[in-house]
Amino acid sequence: MFRHCLRAFVRLASTREFQVPVKTTHRFYVKLVGGGTVLYQLSLFGFGGSRKPDIESADTWMAKPITDLKYLQENNHDMKCRVEAMIMRIQAEFCHALEKEEEEEGGKKFLVDKWERDQGGGGITCVLQDGTVFEKAGVNISVVSGILPPSAMQQMRARGKKFEGEKVKFFAAGVSSVIHPKNPHIPTVHFNYRYFEVEAENGEKQWWFGGGTDLTPNFLEEEDVVHFHKELKKACDRHDKKLYPKYKKWCDDYFFVTHRGERRGVGGIFFDDVDEPTADKCFDFVTGCADSVIPSYLPLVQKHKKDLYSYKEREWQLLRRGRYVEFNLIYDRGTKFGLYTPGARFESILMSLPLNARWEYMHKPAPGSKEARLVDVLQNPRDWI
Amino acid sequence: MFRHCLRAFVRLASTREFQVPVKTTHRFYVKLVGGGTVLYQLSLFGFGGSRKPDIESADTWMAKPITDLKYLQENNHDMKCRVEAMIMRIQAEFCHALEKEEEEEGGKKFLVDKWERDQGGGGITCVLQDGTVFEKAGVNISVVSGILPPSAMQQMRARGKKFEGEKVKFFAAGVSSVIHPKNPHIPTVHFNYRYFEVEAENGEKQWWFGGGTDLTPNFLEEEDVVHFHKELKKACDRHDKKLYPKYKKWCDDYFFVTHRGERRGVGGIFFDDVDEPTADKCFDFVTGCADSVIPSYLPLVQKHKKDLYSYKEREWQLLRRGRYVEFNLIYDRGTKFGLYTPGARFESILMSLPLNARWEYMHKPAPGSKEARLVDVLQNPRDWI
Repeated sequence: MFRHCLRAFVRLASTREFQVPVKTTHRFYVKLVGGGTVLYQLSLFGFGGSRKPDIESADTWMAKPITDLKYLQENNHDMKCRVEAMIMRIQAEFCHALEKEEEEEGGKKFLVDKWERDQGGGGITCVLQDGTVFEKAGVNISVVSGILPPSAMQQMRARGKKFEGEKVKFFAAGVSSVIHPKNPHIPTVHFNYRYFEVEAENGEKQWWFGGGTDLTPNFLEEEDVVHFHKELKKACDRHDKKLYPKYKKWCDDYFFVTHRGERRGVGGIFFDDVDEPTADKCFDFVTGCADSVIPSYLPLVQKHKKDLYSYKEREWQLLRRGRYVEFNLIYDRGTKFGLYTPGARFESILMSLPLNARWEYMHKPAPGSKEARLVDVLQNPRDWI
Repeated sequence: MFRHCLRAFVRLASTREFQVPVKTTHRFYVKLVGGGTVLYQLSLFGFGGSRKPDIESADTWMAKPITDLKYLQENNHDMKCRVEAMIMRIQAEFCHALEKEEEEEGGKKFLVDKWERDQGGGGITCVLQDGTVFEKAGVNISVVSGILPPSAMQQMRARGKKFEGEKVKFFAAGVSSVIHPKNPHIPTVHFNYRYFEVEAENGEKQWWFGGGTDLTPNFLEEEDVVHFHKELKKACDRHDKKLYPKYKKWCDDYFFVTHRGERRGVGGIFFDDVDEPTADKCFDFVTGCADSVIPSYLPLVQKHKKDLYSYKEREWQLLRRGRYVEFNLIYDRGTKFGLYTPGARFESILMSLPLNARWEYMHKPAPGSKEARLVDVLQNPRDWI
């Protein structure tokens, strides 16, 4: 509650902020509030150090964690445990925030599915299906470990990772989510934040973080897109002003549907192999990005959830959902990586697919229409800030 | 017309047939009709030799062929031309047969889209969308040539083809079709028959045929599946009794959705790299298979097109369509081969996707239900004959 109040305060004040000296210490933040100057520790809103540990939110989590809670509490120095606690908190906060939007509309709740993986670890899949506001909302965490399957190793090597030997031990933990709302005027959002550790046969260890948040609207509301990108930029800028432009471009490049020559949506941020400058700072950065999902996306849900829409707008939404399926099943590395991994829980991976989708042969929006304006921006990504 | 009458006669009589000496000459066929013995040339119904050439059906084709008609007529000794004429005829016959089913229901016709490929060749895509009987019916032919793109070469090498050098010339012609009917009691059908020629840098040439027909019902009507398989078996048996069991198994193996542990449908036949004993005989075999599409599938359309169905049955059909999309976008070699080929006409490739599809998290049919009976047969393929 205390953290929530603080976050609300920070959000309120955050329109007139500047930072010193962000790049070097990441410790202090200067903010102008009502003309005065307030100096307070970044640690209050997700910058590590003396911040309230994620583990303390355990009573709000959607289910018991994959690892025994006591073990997580006692090993809070271990990055594996810190990440698990963080993704548990993120999952819970996001699910509760979405359930709140459903509250006045029938009060549909998330179904919570805890599953185990034969080869080690497991996950918690939360799905809210056929709600009033959300057609299909999935928020998944997984914490898995074992020996890297050959297909996964091949994929990792293909993108430059080097391991000695064939028996590479791995640990992977992450939170991922796709929200397909019912109203065509609310965009779809996706985010995924993850942590990897691998240990080669010769004992050599590597670790890295990856993740991103991106938005897929059916109609272009520039104001919404700008808001969304601004929140992500804020999360990035707190660590390094160079990050947002780099990860924004990476996102535009990654979510590219090659055969159509268009992006899946209007982007956001995307990154992988983040392992600098320190594990602590990487963790803080990724936590900050995950914390920016609610402030970047929820205002769009609240703004549009009661918008009226036509049959034609619903049809267009279904066609866009078809494109979403194309990207996820043909190009998305995470989906392929997942489905090709023996023993993978495909229901959790395919939770990203919409409840309904449509494909029409040679559908082309009328020139100058709002549908055409969206396609134009998918073909020619813009700078939003 | 003459051929149609003959085919109808043959179909009528074909319940009491046996063959001598099929394997060695493929020239004569002995049939018992009404107790008497009739001996007539196979060439009358699709066994090459003096059969009426496909090119003579040109006035019924959906559009002008990709290659100039006159050239096709004058080069009927060239397999490339023979295949083009054959796929043009198959496309036209199938489209007309489907249009006939729509006739009394509003009379929706196929949209005919002729397209060219920058790098050489082109195709004719026929689509009937949102009809009364057919939700989405696509029948496509393509005749393309050029230099094999690296991705295609890699894929071909991966399955054992050997070519010298990097600049491999290719020619590919085929007909492919997916029919998604509206009524959940009519199965979806897919077929594809194709011919390849490649010429390596050292001038070495290779050619082969591939193809198959397979059925994807939403509910298991054993009688329908048996009829379907029997027609395919007939087409195979005329050439070699060993073919049907081999190609039936290949089909079950190919249309496997690995992550779900189930097949896409109840199978049919599937083959590739067919290049024995002679090009003529391969062509006759493939033509016979393509000719078996109408007798194997159309009776199922006619039988079920006026069946009543419930909302629940429609919902189940949409879920099965979602599975169809999964197979096509994740596993189907043809789709991947197509989409990864530069300059490919993706609209023709993705014509196979249904108009509407649905994904529900963790949907499981009730034990003992007719939905569960279908899933059981998808997990445990049967011998139908």
